[in-house]
Amino acid sequence: RIMRPDDANIAGNVHGGTILKMIEEAGAIISTRHCNSQAGEPSVAALARVERTDFLSPMCIGEVANVSAEITYTSRHSVEVQVNVMSENILTGAKKLTNKATLWYVPLSLKNVNKVLEVPPIQYTRKEQEDEGKKRYEEQKLDRLETKQRNGDVIFPVINPEPHTVGYSQSSLIHLVGPSDCTLLGFVHGGVTMKLMDEVAGIVAARHCKTNIVTASVDAINFHEKIKKGCVITISGRMTFTSNKSMEIEVFVDADPFLDEPRERYRAVSAFFTYVSLSKEGKPLPVPQLLTETEDEKRRFEEGKGRYLQTKAKRQAQMQQAAQQ
Amino acid sequence: RIMRPDDANIAGNVHGGTILKMIEEAGAIISTRHCNSQAGEPSVAALARVERTDFLSPMCIGEVANVSAEITYTSRHSVEVQVNVMSENILTGAKKLTNKATLWYVPLSLKNVNKVLEVPPIQYTRKEQEDEGKKRYEEQKLDRLETKQRNGDVIFPVINPEPHTVGYSQSSLIHLVGPSDCTLLGFVHGGVTMKLMDEVAGIVAARHCKTNIVTASVDAINFHEKIKKGCVITISGRMTFTSNKSMEIEVFVDADPFLDEPRERYRAVSAFFTYVSLSKEGKPLPVPQLLTETEDEKRRFEEGKGRYLQTKAKRQAQMQQAAQQ
Amino acid sequence: RIMRPDDANIAGNVHGGTILKMIEEAGAIISTRHCNSQAGEPSVAALARVERTDFLSPMCIGEVANVSAEITYTSRHSVEVQVNVMSENILTGAKKLTNKATLWYVPLSLKNVNKVLEVPPIQYTRKEQEDEGKKRYEEQKLDRLETKQRNGDVIFPVINPEPHTVGYSQSSLIHLVGPSDCTLLGFVHGGVTMKLMDEVAGIVAARHCKTNIVTASVDAINFHEKIKKGCVITISGRMTFTSNKSMEIEVFVDADPFLDEPRERYRAVSAFFTYVSLSKEGKPLPVPQLLTETEDEKRRFEEGKGRYLQTKAKRQAQMQQAAQQ
Repeated sequence: RIMRPDDANIAGNVHGGTILKMIEEAGAIISTRHCNSQAGEPSVAALARVERTDFLSPMCIGEVANVSAEITYTSRHSVEVQVNVMSENILTGAKKLTNKATLWYVPLSLKNVNKVLEVPPIQYTRKEQEDEGKKRYEEQKLDRLETKQRNGDVIFPVINPEPHTVGYSQSSLIHLVGPSDCTLLGFVHGGVTMKLMDEVAGIVAARHCKTNIVTASVDAINFHEKIKKGCVITISGRMTFTSNKSMEIEVFVDADPFLDEPRERYRAVSAFFTYVSLSKEGKPLPVPQLLTETEDEKRRFEEGKGRYLQTKAKRQAQMQQAAQQ
Repeated sequence: RIMRPDDANIAGNVHGGTILKMIEEAGAIISTRHCNSQAGEPSVAALARVERTDFLSPMCIGEVANVSAEITYTSRHSVEVQVNVMSENILTGAKKLTNKATLWYVPLSLKNVNKVLEVPPIQYTRKEQEDEGKKRYEEQKLDRLETKQRNGDVIFPVINPEPHTVGYSQSSLIHLVGPSDCTLLGFVHGGVTMKLMDEVAGIVAARHCKTNIVTASVDAINFHEKIKKGCVITISGRMTFTSNKSMEIEVFVDADPFLDEPRERYRAVSAFFTYVSLSKEGKPLPVPQLLTETEDEKRRFEEGKGRYLQTKAKRQAQMQQAAQQ
Repeated sequence: RIMRPDDANIAGNVHGGTILKMIEEAGAIISTRHCNSQAGEPSVAALARVERTDFLSPMCIGEVANVSAEITYTSRHSVEVQVNVMSENILTGAKKLTNKATLWYVPLSLKNVNKVLEVPPIQYTRKEQEDEGKKRYEEQKLDRLETKQRNGDVIFPVINPEPHTVGYSQSSLIHLVGPSDCTLLGFVHGGVTMKLMDEVAGIVAARHCKTNIVTASVDAINFHEKIKKGCVITISGRMTFTSNKSMEIEVFVDADPFLDEPRERYRAVSAFFTYVSLSKEGKPLPVPQLLTETEDEKRRFEEGKGRYLQTKAKRQAQMQQAAQQ
């Protein structure tokens, strides 16, 4: 679809959240279709996890986003989908790869939302495809267990914070979940949640550096808990780490199911977004360093530094490997 | 309502699809109101057909669209609505006729969607009005039968196509039908479908000529099949014909009712859109000729030429008639 | 236009904010048209104030909103517009008056946004109309001066609040002002701001009483400061008063013009919303009493009580007057 002014910031760069939402919609369609390809109980595919996603090049207003999706692995109860996004300037014909994303879906019964159904197996053209898929499946399963731990943290407000401290840029947003945010099962689309998370992360980044900013990457996101129609969700973001030219923002999504249910507020999703600041010519700018004050802030800064160095090392290894081939 | 940046392309011209959607909403309101004006089973008017619609002058961001609708004929089971759209520049006060559209609606029972109800007859001020309406009714009925044939065709993707070939500009878009796309009966509003069709046709046209393009007209559209909430619809467009200054694009809408129903993908709607390319001053530009390769493409080009010449002849006849009056 | 699922809460009642946005759009169109009806510098009418607005009967999904607007008074630099909203059930034909709103607009030059232009005078059919209009004009002018004082207050966050306290339900939302929120001058439409304010007020009310709630009325809102495209706005709401069956919520809008400008965050708008809680049959329910803790909260509660009693007395006086006529 064509990118519109509302999909973009003032500098004309399309919000990462808009792209994440399109990716998830494509993933939901292809995996729901696959899970219903054999006779049996009808189901809706629910997003369980998105792997780390890099934004390789910014997309602009007026460009067309081409989204293609393919099922690359199936386990007994889950589907792995690979989604590619190309930006196309239809005036010049130029095309660029914008994103490569990997998503995991689980089929839930249309009649009983708590029942996970079986996934029809796909055919692999080569045995290795299946083995590699199985390896990715096991890895993400482990990682999902780990993040469940991290979920207890809460963002506390700060009164009269100093510029460039964590409290200065932290932000939160409330959203009442409406019908068009939801799947047929009455639960929020994963893509809608990711779009709101990117919105908050973007505001945190802009408040910190007061320049034009764009999403550079999103760490793996696990969707542990479903969010129901009619909930109020609070999306909060705080900066955890800055390198010379990037900012890492942690985002939490909490759901208040206050209408029908006796249930308490719960943490539904959390993730790390990385942003960069761009000059008017589109080049990365240095960002002000984050001032950490409390022990927790210092610890989170170090953890963020760890993730940053790990990602950097991984990228360099990939580039060397690519150079040798 | 005021036209906003999201309603328009980068050059500020409002998308034909936005206008078609407003027209259909006005038509649906007036015909549903009329069909329920007498005691009896409540019904919702469903769009059955839109007659050929010309876009007489482009509308711009900031202008106000004034939409007025009137019922001009009723048969036993259908309602003909005439909708006029005026664009008003509220700064200068200038008003221009943008569109005159004719739509046909059929009342479906609110309780049983497969039951077509009877339409309360309207009063005509002159006998000729009724006779002319009856003639239009018979004509569109014939035409609806004919288009049912054409619906088998499918758009195949082309690898590495040459510029200005059919394969080069053909495009498709998928859309998951959500609650706010639908009427009270849970079926997609005709206006929503037309807006998506115009979006795809616009992308095809822009890919072909790489300039600013606007909708010039839409051929009659027949809505043979309803599309239900929860469907995935695929909207595909390909160029069929170019004259010196216009492009004809054929658009198909296919629905995948994959959730509840055992039904196969089906063709829900198809139509021809005509686009022109505009210079920065708003004047029509020459467009590159479409290169046809296969026998089918050549045949469709000739058919498109036939439609083009027929429309041109009709318009000239109307202008002569107007000049003589 | 037809009310859609997205315009309403889960119980099917259309959000007061959606209606306020429609009212403001109608007011902006008619007053911009009027201000440009004579030769001279082109201008865009900017919303300066909305008088107290009551929501007389709830509107539901599937109903059609009929909005009509009329200019009822002009001073040298301002226009008073009366907007009526009727809800129409197009299945039964039943129509009900939903709102009567009075809005004040000021024409700003399209070339120089800081220049207020003159308003062409309207013709009155009776001399009393002009006198009554002048009286309303003088009253609102006084009231606008008064509210300017109140604007310094800030909502501080509360950690681990008890149910039914002020801190328990207070909420805030951030919104990045995009192009389709704005007028031709690049400033946020008053209607967009009011819709967001109603959204926050509704969440505060729902958090307090955990039932289905609807907007009952909005006190006069003054728009002292314009909000520019690209700003981040923070909309915060806190409960100030509860009667047996109603809740009063104070809402603040603060703008952060952080991108281009050296300016600090400023208070752009503030207002009081009154909500009621509805049973499944649509009858008003008792609401839990607000627990006030601090001196400020107790003072605001008393002030709210004053407003509540004043409104009640005014309504009874009107009913007696109506009964005597």
